[in-house]
Amino acid sequence: MSYARFTDLMAGINDILCTVNLLAWDTRTQMPPGGADSRGHQVATLTALARAQATGSAMADAIAAAEDACAHLPATDLRRRALARARREIAILSRIPAALIAESAELTSRAHGAWTAARAANDFAAYAPVLERVFALQREMAEAIGYQDHPYDALVGRFEPGMTRARLTALFADLRGALRPLLAQALAAPAPRTDFLSRGYPVPAQKAFAATMAAALGYDFSRGRVDDTAHPFEISFTRNDVRITGRFRESSPSAGFFALWHEAGHAMYEQNIAPDFTRGIFATDLVNLYAVGGSSFGMHESQSRLWENRVGRSRRFWELHYGRLRDAFPEQLADVSAEDFWRAVNRPEPGLIRVEADELTYDFHVFLRAEIEAALIGGDIAVRDLPAIWNDRMREDLGVTVPNDAQGVLQDVHWSHGYVGSFPTYTFGNIMAAQLFDRARQDPAIAAGLQAGDYAPLGRWLTGTVHRHGRSLDPDEILLAATGRGLDPAPYVATLAAKVAELA
Amino acid sequence: MSYARFTDLMAGINDILCTVNLLAWDTRTQMPPGGADSRGHQVATLTALARAQATGSAMADAIAAAEDACAHLPATDLRRRALARARREIAILSRIPAALIAESAELTSRAHGAWTAARAANDFAAYAPVLERVFALQREMAEAIGYQDHPYDALVGRFEPGMTRARLTALFADLRGALRPLLAQALAAPAPRTDFLSRGYPVPAQKAFAATMAAALGYDFSRGRVDDTAHPFEISFTRNDVRITGRFRESSPSAGFFALWHEAGHAMYEQNIAPDFTRGIFATDLVNLYAVGGSSFGMHESQSRLWENRVGRSRRFWELHYGRLRDAFPEQLADVSAEDFWRAVNRPEPGLIRVEADELTYDFHVFLRAEIEAALIGGDIAVRDLPAIWNDRMREDLGVTVPNDAQGVLQDVHWSHGYVGSFPTYTFGNIMAAQLFDRARQDPAIAAGLQAGDYAPLGRWLTGTVHRHGRSLDPDEILLAATGRGLDPAPYVATLAAKVAELA
Repeated sequence: MSYARFTDLMAGINDILCTVNLLAWDTRTQMPPGGADSRGHQVATLTALARAQATGSAMADAIAAAEDACAHLPATDLRRRALARARREIAILSRIPAALIAESAELTSRAHGAWTAARAANDFAAYAPVLERVFALQREMAEAIGYQDHPYDALVGRFEPGMTRARLTALFADLRGALRPLLAQALAAPAPRTDFLSRGYPVPAQKAFAATMAAALGYDFSRGRVDDTAHPFEISFTRNDVRITGRFRESSPSAGFFALWHEAGHAMYEQNIAPDFTRGIFATDLVNLYAVGGSSFGMHESQSRLWENRVGRSRRFWELHYGRLRDAFPEQLADVSAEDFWRAVNRPEPGLIRVEADELTYDFHVFLRAEIEAALIGGDIAVRDLPAIWNDRMREDLGVTVPNDAQGVLQDVHWSHGYVGSFPTYTFGNIMAAQLFDRARQDPAIAAGLQAGDYAPLGRWLTGTVHRHGRSLDPDEILLAATGRGLDPAPYVATLAAKVAELA
Repeated sequence: MSYARFTDLMAGINDILCTVNLLAWDTRTQMPPGGADSRGHQVATLTALARAQATGSAMADAIAAAEDACAHLPATDLRRRALARARREIAILSRIPAALIAESAELTSRAHGAWTAARAANDFAAYAPVLERVFALQREMAEAIGYQDHPYDALVGRFEPGMTRARLTALFADLRGALRPLLAQALAAPAPRTDFLSRGYPVPAQKAFAATMAAALGYDFSRGRVDDTAHPFEISFTRNDVRITGRFRESSPSAGFFALWHEAGHAMYEQNIAPDFTRGIFATDLVNLYAVGGSSFGMHESQSRLWENRVGRSRRFWELHYGRLRDAFPEQLADVSAEDFWRAVNRPEPGLIRVEADELTYDFHVFLRAEIEAALIGGDIAVRDLPAIWNDRMREDLGVTVPNDAQGVLQDVHWSHGYVGSFPTYTFGNIMAAQLFDRARQDPAIAAGLQAGDYAPLGRWLTGTVHRHGRSLDPDEILLAATGRGLDPAPYVATLAAKVAELA
């Protein structure tokens, strides 16, 4: 009975946070322009309600009573894990003052406008004071949350449990060292044909192909739907309703496919969380007040990257499915082979923009952002120095010259939204995806499925290994159980090396 | 300061209830089928939160403190009216036991399935026990709310403040007496051409015409949008986001137009509530826990009916706009004049189905339902007798023979949703629409606008007279201020008589 009281309260909080997700989805896909102000009130009210319920005395009493009732169970029992997680997350949430959350929310709404204007005007100086305030508040956030070594630990730990600045600095240094020669090697190879990618591909047929393949990968449309947005995303309101969005352009077919399969990868994670976990603590992030079923931001990204890059950009995938694409675009692809297409969508090309980066250059964009974040939070650099730091590093790492700040330090929305500490999780996701995929394809049924275009065996393995656990396991626990190792970049480096060789 | 505390709490409740409206809109327009169970939890949790906030001690304390702070103001001051309304509505809400609300909600979800199955199988006996339980709970509801003369007063009063069974019985008897000879007279006239209504009219062009005209009537698309549903409806999330839905069929163009303009009429009410009232008590129904800005269900219906019937079905409207319709369907309408079209969409035709009824027969469907509701609540008749009562009355009033209960007593969803006492508001709306329109067109600028197809003067008058007041005035106050009389069927009868004469 005591434990049921705790789960009832958690279910109610999850209902509120799922509804906040619906408000967010609607804002980005359906809402008429006039609705923005009212929507802001609705999100603020519901988020405050969720926080009040999580940090209130009814929840504290329920947790204490449930802990007593469960004290006789082994510490590994799921009920004890649920209680421990709730207590830990609520403790962190309680340490963040409501006034700080309110000021951050107010600043975020102001910062977004300032960022948009500054990027349009290519005027970093106009944005710098706002960005200084963002980082000042994030330093306060870090102090409120608490940390052992470095304030950045508190921030990155909100998105990736157990991660610290020291750990990611070492990890990223290793990875950078391994990626540089691979990139040089890839760029030395002859460039593939890409001329046909910019031919006109009518959007409806692109969408139909992308959606058919998303369903083939395992996305369940009876518990989901696809809409159009400028920036594709995935969002869920329990495992029973997990929606994705895509962006398709006539002149760029492959970008739309991979973006949709990326979001479908996120969505399959949410759709396959254990039914008992949905609406519970294992599908609720009480630190960030977010209804989400993934173990961490990095683990979530691993699922999107796995389907996008390990499956969707594989040679076999296009050997199997290119015929269907050519049937949809017989004129545009008349002179293009499956091999041509696969090579084109894997072309390495150092560029300015993170979201357009290929697999070999993507992580360099992350390294730069993580270093800047940690140094700003640590007080080692000043906001005014960012353009110079940014441009130097882009030249050094990728050999590209940044022509203006709009295509440089002003390109990402994250900081203006108060997201400091989330960039590294993109690279964690790349690493985890390779670790998991490497292990999975050792299973003969999975390997045979990938060979035949039957993705159900891989999906079942991911569900059993990752998805069903929701937030009941930390990322390191999932990786250890699946691969015998914690976060380990070696399979990722080996995977990229093999791809470079395959493309040579 | 004390008053601000009250309005802050009200704004928070409105935020929750607007979000419940979004959950409802999404359920009916966007949600994938798998999402239903989770959605039910989300609606139940948010509704319970709104109820808890409305009936909790913080609100009671805030109202008491604000009443003290406002005691020196005249009783007509809006702040005192807001406090009085909140106190009155919360008192009613508090008298409805939470257990009764929960049992009603549970029954509603069961009853909807039972109703759907019974209607499909034409099996009233299978539905009767559920309907008996619905009415038993509604009797409990009436006792909890309280009443002076008849339990039905408590139920109809939830939707139409100040209305009672005695008042509506007398009103409906008068109206029935006036409508019967008009209907007989109309049916004696030669039938108009309607052959062309069943030609194929492609839906996209129908939608474009209907939406263009909805905008011309005054629906603001920058604070709204149109979607498709089997049953058209309007719903709002503050005045800044008011959405409508339509249903268009190739074989029946006019039904889709009038349904959309009907919903646009509801929507203009919500869009034009005073900005200060949105998010407040004057845009929140605390008895029904519903974010809505209208004075009553009847007054809301008056706005939909006014634009649908008084404007949209007028001869002048089609003289002005038929050319645009014929441009959209040049082949289908080649042999059809504006006069033909206007006559066809005003054809009186006694039928079985309320939602398909014309202006002269619609109210008879309402009379029947209101009598049955009141008699069931009063214990004067039994559920098992409904088919016989229904069929007798349909024969007597409209001269039609009901071939089966699916097209008779089982046709409406309302009772299975626990809506008992709402049917009469449809007729109140018809009456009020005629009262208001009669008064409005005495204004030369409004009359000139209607003549020229400029609907802004009428819209401005309705905004000033009805819309902007939200729930700050009761329907009788609005009618009295606008027309010098309370609810009065005479203008409605005169309007219909004039139309019968015009069509003769």
